[in-house]
Amino acid sequence: MFVRNCWYVAAWDYELEERPIARTIISEPLVLYRASSGALVCMEDRCCHRFAPLSKGRIEGDDLRCMYHGLKFAPSGKCIEIPGQETIPARAVVRAYPVRVKHSWVWVWMGDPAQADEALIPPAIGFEDANWTLRGSSINYDANYLLVNDNLTDFTHLSYVHRNSFGASEEFALTRPDVKLLPRGVRIQRWIVAGIRDDAEASTALQIEGRKRGGPGLESWQSYDFLAPGILLMRTRSFRAGTRDRFKGHEEDLDNVPALSDDFTSQAVTPMTDNTTRYYFSWGPRKGEGSERSADQMLDLAQRAFAEDKEMIEAQQRIMNVRPGKEVLTSADVAPMQMRACLERLARAEAPAGT
Amino acid sequence: MFVRNCWYVAAWDYELEERPIARTIISEPLVLYRASSGALVCMEDRCCHRFAPLSKGRIEGDDLRCMYHGLKFAPSGKCIEIPGQETIPARAVVRAYPVRVKHSWVWVWMGDPAQADEALIPPAIGFEDANWTLRGSSINYDANYLLVNDNLTDFTHLSYVHRNSFGASEEFALTRPDVKLLPRGVRIQRWIVAGIRDDAEASTALQIEGRKRGGPGLESWQSYDFLAPGILLMRTRSFRAGTRDRFKGHEEDLDNVPALSDDFTSQAVTPMTDNTTRYYFSWGPRKGEGSERSADQMLDLAQRAFAEDKEMIEAQQRIMNVRPGKEVLTSADVAPMQMRACLERLARAEAPAGT
Amino acid sequence: MFVRNCWYVAAWDYELEERPIARTIISEPLVLYRASSGALVCMEDRCCHRFAPLSKGRIEGDDLRCMYHGLKFAPSGKCIEIPGQETIPARAVVRAYPVRVKHSWVWVWMGDPAQADEALIPPAIGFEDANWTLRGSSINYDANYLLVNDNLTDFTHLSYVHRNSFGASEEFALTRPDVKLLPRGVRIQRWIVAGIRDDAEASTALQIEGRKRGGPGLESWQSYDFLAPGILLMRTRSFRAGTRDRFKGHEEDLDNVPALSDDFTSQAVTPMTDNTTRYYFSWGPRKGEGSERSADQMLDLAQRAFAEDKEMIEAQQRIMNVRPGKEVLTSADVAPMQMRACLERLARAEAPAGT
Repeated sequence: MFVRNCWYVAAWDYELEERPIARTIISEPLVLYRASSGALVCMEDRCCHRFAPLSKGRIEGDDLRCMYHGLKFAPSGKCIEIPGQETIPARAVVRAYPVRVKHSWVWVWMGDPAQADEALIPPAIGFEDANWTLRGSSINYDANYLLVNDNLTDFTHLSYVHRNSFGASEEFALTRPDVKLLPRGVRIQRWIVAGIRDDAEASTALQIEGRKRGGPGLESWQSYDFLAPGILLMRTRSFRAGTRDRFKGHEEDLDNVPALSDDFTSQAVTPMTDNTTRYYFSWGPRKGEGSERSADQMLDLAQRAFAEDKEMIEAQQRIMNVRPGKEVLTSADVAPMQMRACLERLARAEAPAGT
Repeated sequence: MFVRNCWYVAAWDYELEERPIARTIISEPLVLYRASSGALVCMEDRCCHRFAPLSKGRIEGDDLRCMYHGLKFAPSGKCIEIPGQETIPARAVVRAYPVRVKHSWVWVWMGDPAQADEALIPPAIGFEDANWTLRGSSINYDANYLLVNDNLTDFTHLSYVHRNSFGASEEFALTRPDVKLLPRGVRIQRWIVAGIRDDAEASTALQIEGRKRGGPGLESWQSYDFLAPGILLMRTRSFRAGTRDRFKGHEEDLDNVPALSDDFTSQAVTPMTDNTTRYYFSWGPRKGEGSERSADQMLDLAQRAFAEDKEMIEAQQRIMNVRPGKEVLTSADVAPMQMRACLERLARAEAPAGT
Repeated sequence: MFVRNCWYVAAWDYELEERPIARTIISEPLVLYRASSGALVCMEDRCCHRFAPLSKGRIEGDDLRCMYHGLKFAPSGKCIEIPGQETIPARAVVRAYPVRVKHSWVWVWMGDPAQADEALIPPAIGFEDANWTLRGSSINYDANYLLVNDNLTDFTHLSYVHRNSFGASEEFALTRPDVKLLPRGVRIQRWIVAGIRDDAEASTALQIEGRKRGGPGLESWQSYDFLAPGILLMRTRSFRAGTRDRFKGHEEDLDNVPALSDDFTSQAVTPMTDNTTRYYFSWGPRKGEGSERSADQMLDLAQRAFAEDKEMIEAQQRIMNVRPGKEVLTSADVAPMQMRACLERLARAEAPAGT
């Protein structure tokens, strides 16, 4: 089940340099390239002639030439040259996809181009942002994207999967966040008191500057939106003990309180095929003294932690492949299930009647 | 075709140390661990919640905690804790399997637990046995288990596959053993005269202490049971020339004759999936002067020889995958076919009427 | 779609040394070996007994013994020995295939043996030929053989895929060859003026002795037959400027004109399975001063260029696997489509009525 009418993250913008790149999103092979005009182009990665990959093609000005038999395509997807032949058949066209660069990501609209509304691009934060020092990377999963979405909408797993990497305490498993439905996703918010463990095994996380200052009573306000198809935008701030009691219910006033730590992460889950997923993420602290070094440490930590997720989720997928079944849900599954319902609702709204 | 109501070898007992281990038997993922009570536990390796592998879990006393979202399971398979939630749904349970440690192997009963009769565990010989010095190991096959069973119930192949490793002469191919039906298998017995070749290529086998003393007329009495689902228990003794004629027909009296060599092997063929199999084996001589060194040499030799079987059987499986067909059977196929019929009979007896 | 009644290249003759070799052609596993009589034998690589590969067998005189259980087969495919058993069942036979060595290749007839007409072996040129200095090799494709046939019957791709390796100019894409139907293939002929680029990137091709002498106006006459199932036999000669105008329409008279370069290539496309293909090729100049060195250079160049084809064709196959569809053909597809039609016609002629 894939939603088509939404923006999928296809790449970091810095990945689009001189050569075209190949991507697969919801099982459709895509080629992306930067035209000489500077505009980004996204087309079907499959020449209409004999199905060679256009991603092995040559950028010629704004156009892309297939390097198998030389057909040339305009950014519109229309074939504009067949070497050695005058006439170009009307059928000689490949699909072009709406594409935008925003917040350091390249977004592709996989559905009806007429409905490609730029306002639907989620408000991620890019590297150029004035307030945050961010680092980013990406990894691939051999798993369906919904399993990654589930993981990101239920932080119960932090207490187990990331016990040593993020140093998460059992608080993440023992307490439940507030979950609120949004038009295209869910908002998840919680206070975590003593969410980071204090012992030696959790030392990696503790070593990062500014995380955990404030001692054992540290209180964190964590708030994120998780939006279709799989975009997580989360800010986490830590405060001295007592802050929670003072601000509970009107956390918007926290903006006036100096935080002990303050970080932001943007994450994007992009289904490649039914069984493979690409996961883009950035993370980092507020800009300031030492934030460059912290951002480096945080990226290292994130890569270690996300490798833990990858191991668990790919194992989960393998088991589901051989022994599918019906889950026994818990109260921690509220957000994952609301998110799945949201995607199903969006997908159903796209389907022609009767399908 | 799998028999369910039987004991399958799941591991060597020494493999169960501090961490849970994952196994797949007849396509069912299993987790095995040793509880703090010392008891062995075997459960479905698939959390009932979201299907994460319990084999990545944490042993807590007698229980096992899933390290994805923290559900805790008792050895019975019942979920006894969901972090952050009071109520535990009645459906929150995973299947538990009867499990025993015996003869250095861990045995799992894959069928109806009510019928798990310990008396059905075949009388293998373990490392702790007072009479034998044994070494063991295991290898995986990319092949259906019945092809391995066939191999072990027809020693014709020794003359060809193991000509140089075991140094087998053509006697194994030119003569036929006696085959007798047992309630859950077959008994295979034969005299082999000059079964080990005398030439240089067969030198590895000859170098093992005590095998082949007695010169060219060496006579061996080889007797083994092959029991469902795939357990081979074989003793081989060698005697001076003339012994066969004296004892033929009443080999039970051989116990009173000093043997030139005397060894025992226990082997277990465990189907993992339709196309993969795990093969456990031990081998070694009677305890005595030099038996430790002989046992080491014999393990080396067995590993070399079983790699030869693996190469042949996996090739056979690949060919059957692309070109299935009907075999042309020979008189050497009596035992393999009786063994297959035995397993089919056992499997049929389990099936509900009408299936 | 495979034609059965034709000769397939199964190996270079030098590959048949002391041991049997395994090959798969049109999804049928084959074993080939040289009998002690010197004759070549080709049989089904699947013992009729339990389906072990005969390619792991032992050559005994003219016969081949299966090294699993010892059955021995004559070159006719008939089982002539079952160790330990008197009677040999009439069904104990494997299929034998007509096989010939010619032009340094081993040819196997995959269809009705009664129709195996040696005259249908295409007139390739082997290493022993008195006129040419040749080098050969082979590579595998993860692609259907028809995609390789398409590639070899449409040289448009030289201008793009082999722009730097062969140094091909755009002439190959901008002009069209003459294509003529043959009873079992197509004949493709063309003049190419300035077909090799003159710039630095194309330098590899230019460095080969004797190719490109004559300056920018170099004119080449390229003529090849492409015959079922996928045999390319091509001669390419280069001449000084003006030769084309003098000989156009009666190129047979070129035999009297001294060529600046003159080379011959034999190539064979052999389908292994639906998705895998083996590709044999030789190439080299006319025998003469320096031809050994040129032949070495040409082999290096061919291997570099064919790796480019492999990359493109395997990518094309992968895309077709996930997104099949209907091609938009161009005027360059005349020969590929005629060749496909030829193979379909031959295959249809073999099919029993009503299939």
